[in-house]
Amino acid sequence: MRVLIVYAHLEPHSFNHALKEQAINVLQAARHEVRVSDLYAQSFNPVATWHDFERAAVIQPRQYGVMQREAYLHHHVAEDIIAEQEKLSWCDLVIFQFPLWWFSAPAILKGWFDRVLMAGYAYDKEKWFATGLLTSRRAILSVTTQSPKSAYDASNMHGDIKQILYPVHHTLRFVGIMPLSPFLAYGVMNMDTQERRQCLMDYQLHLSEQIEKK
Amino acid sequence: MRVLIVYAHLEPHSFNHALKEQAINVLQAARHEVRVSDLYAQSFNPVATWHDFERAAVIQPRQYGVMQREAYLHHHVAEDIIAEQEKLSWCDLVIFQFPLWWFSAPAILKGWFDRVLMAGYAYDKEKWFATGLLTSRRAILSVTTQSPKSAYDASNMHGDIKQILYPVHHTLRFVGIMPLSPFLAYGVMNMDTQERRQCLMDYQLHLSEQIEKK
Repeated sequence: MRVLIVYAHLEPHSFNHALKEQAINVLQAARHEVRVSDLYAQSFNPVATWHDFERAAVIQPRQYGVMQREAYLHHHVAEDIIAEQEKLSWCDLVIFQFPLWWFSAPAILKGWFDRVLMAGYAYDKEKWFATGLLTSRRAILSVTTQSPKSAYDASNMHGDIKQILYPVHHTLRFVGIMPLSPFLAYGVMNMDTQERRQCLMDYQLHLSEQIEKK
Repeated sequence: MRVLIVYAHLEPHSFNHALKEQAINVLQAARHEVRVSDLYAQSFNPVATWHDFERAAVIQPRQYGVMQREAYLHHHVAEDIIAEQEKLSWCDLVIFQFPLWWFSAPAILKGWFDRVLMAGYAYDKEKWFATGLLTSRRAILSVTTQSPKSAYDASNMHGDIKQILYPVHHTLRFVGIMPLSPFLAYGVMNMDTQERRQCLMDYQLHLSEQIEKK
């Protein structure tokens, strides 16, 4: 299997980094091919601008989604977007590794969705969900939180984690990618060494179980 | 009343721009003070990095939220963040004007939340929700969508718009800001001139009604 890990954390000593490394090790040991988009290391630009399709003919009035489709169909897409699309097209499974910041993905990852999942590439007119352009791929969100698990119950502080992850999962479904069960590492800041080790083992088990579901 | 409009769209001819201008006109006509954070015009950097608190003492292991608090308390925060915090602190009402991209805010706005709503500034230990550090402020999300209104019913294509806006509304509530009823301009790409005019009038009415609720 071909696996792309899209990794969005700024700190090499973070638990996010450890989870990313764990996924690489586990997957490679099982003889899967792994590629990584390390968004911070790549200095990935998350801000959608008209520079994303600089040489494309301008359709007035300029509308970002319309211009995406035009630029994609005529091969006028910025190099950094093409590089990400190439990796995403290559993979069977994409893992998103990120910390939950303000109940969603960090901006650098949000912008990856904004810019990479272009109209014409990831979806098109009436080509979404079951007929989305990225079907036959699956995804796993691997997410760390600061608050403990109990904060993410429906009746508690932050509400159901499913509700919080809904926009990202729905995005994936829209382009045809099937989200598998997410992995949640809750309260990572308060974990001791033993708990971190256990969490990495839980992640290994989670990945194996989800992948074997194929 | 003091109103901050945080505006996140790349195109001056967009309907988002028209809604932003409408808000300015309506509010100023009612003798409210208005300031605007035009994130694209400001080339606002949405990516959280350690440069956000360059002169702050480093606490090992580096954790972004912990560093935020440390930097804020010791006045080591990047200038662009301070400028946004100053406007947010000044206002009684903050309006977020943005297009719904992948069922959430564009990355440039997501990063405004990531970087501006710092620990120590917007919330602190046990200081959240009713005791958040930005209480006595209210917010309105003014959001455009590509899909029509019917796509955002609970039983339809994208699910309930309330569910989609939940992470942003919950963020605001967490820091003590009370979200008022959002304004949704659905299917803006398919509106004709008359429908756009009507929508701007609806927005004027919405703003007046929400503000008078005080």
